[in-house]
Amino acid sequence: MVVNVQRYFALEKKEDKFVLSENDLYHINTVMRMHDGDKVEVVHNNELYICELCDNLAKILTKESTTNNKKARITLVIPLLKEQKMDLILQKATELGVDEIVPVIMERSIVKFDSSKEDKKLARWRKICKEASEQSKRLDIPEVTRVLKMEELKSFNGVKLTCSTSEKSENIKKYLKKQRNYDKIILVIGPEGGLSKQEEEYLKTLDFVSVSLGNLIMRVETVPLFLLSALNYELME
Amino acid sequence: MVVNVQRYFALEKKEDKFVLSENDLYHINTVMRMHDGDKVEVVHNNELYICELCDNLAKILTKESTTNNKKARITLVIPLLKEQKMDLILQKATELGVDEIVPVIMERSIVKFDSSKEDKKLARWRKICKEASEQSKRLDIPEVTRVLKMEELKSFNGVKLTCSTSEKSENIKKYLKKQRNYDKIILVIGPEGGLSKQEEEYLKTLDFVSVSLGNLIMRVETVPLFLLSALNYELME
Repeated sequence: MVVNVQRYFALEKKEDKFVLSENDLYHINTVMRMHDGDKVEVVHNNELYICELCDNLAKILTKESTTNNKKARITLVIPLLKEQKMDLILQKATELGVDEIVPVIMERSIVKFDSSKEDKKLARWRKICKEASEQSKRLDIPEVTRVLKMEELKSFNGVKLTCSTSEKSENIKKYLKKQRNYDKIILVIGPEGGLSKQEEEYLKTLDFVSVSLGNLIMRVETVPLFLLSALNYELME
Repeated sequence: MVVNVQRYFALEKKEDKFVLSENDLYHINTVMRMHDGDKVEVVHNNELYICELCDNLAKILTKESTTNNKKARITLVIPLLKEQKMDLILQKATELGVDEIVPVIMERSIVKFDSSKEDKKLARWRKICKEASEQSKRLDIPEVTRVLKMEELKSFNGVKLTCSTSEKSENIKKYLKKQRNYDKIILVIGPEGGLSKQEEEYLKTLDFVSVSLGNLIMRVETVPLFLLSALNYELME
């Protein structure tokens, strides 16, 4: 893996060449001003290839051996937020290794769900995650699901956590130290006004455990960054 | 401490009233549309007071007892960065409990130091930290120092760390687990291109230890958020 070479995710493989998206070709030709023969990294099916540009395709030179050090699949459940906060979470959560982002309709969200705009928003969110994955040299792109209702969280399995500002809750460190199964972790972040009483009660019935984040009072978009950082630190060996 | 009451840092105390800054009064009167008799929290000399508004002053009603749970003083040394990245670091580092932010001139910074603009920039940076402190209900505002040269870091004491992308370095978790003295921690973050060889060598002579952050490749502005989150998590009891 060469650190200063740009990385792109391929649309498809055609014999010994990869097809790249129009956005990526614009980045290659216009932003980076690269030419035929220049090297790029291309990811396809979670595998990394060193390629050279050739007629707007990426021709495979070598396949790199990569190791996947991940130990837990992390799902982040977030409220609908204003664009700037949403974009920050999507970009930073991708850098911090999130695997799945699930936007959920929550009672106290300032942003209301508008199904007519969902496809456009999803495309935008996924583009942010793709670009952040390239920048962070990931071999995968976090999945951004459609906007779900709270009830749809019942199909999610793993270590299930919600964040609480109540000092009575156990803190996240104490809780994680007691867990043995780190296969999958689901983190639910509430909106600015917090989860409603009903939502909290409902999540309890789905076996979500409410943990405190210590003494810090953070803006809503900072909470996932704190949680993902803390998890990465906890899972470091 | 009432969570939904706005918090402000007082300019000065005059008998049983606090004088607030013009910016804070604008926020109170125009943004929040508060009136005489409305309650605000005011911090003065790291003490918290519940006050009521009265002729653009804050009249003390009660002094609150507060506990300071902090266990380590955290200094963040950062390069000069473009405005948006700088602002993000200042705001988020404040939310994540940083005590001191030290902008340092580094070889590979894209942004060059311009002493004629220093005062204006400092005022801007300090305003961001003050507002983030109010939002995060802190009892203190992180100090933002003048822009220093690398050599001026020799007067700093404590656990001294720089971040490395080299896999040969020990990771931050292993390193911190071995430390006993957490009084003071100094974290140096390099610019986009990293610290130069000379800077790295120089920091070694000042007893800075280079640690890795695991397998994540982060943008420069994400590194301090990761580090501060990890530290908060490590120091949680």
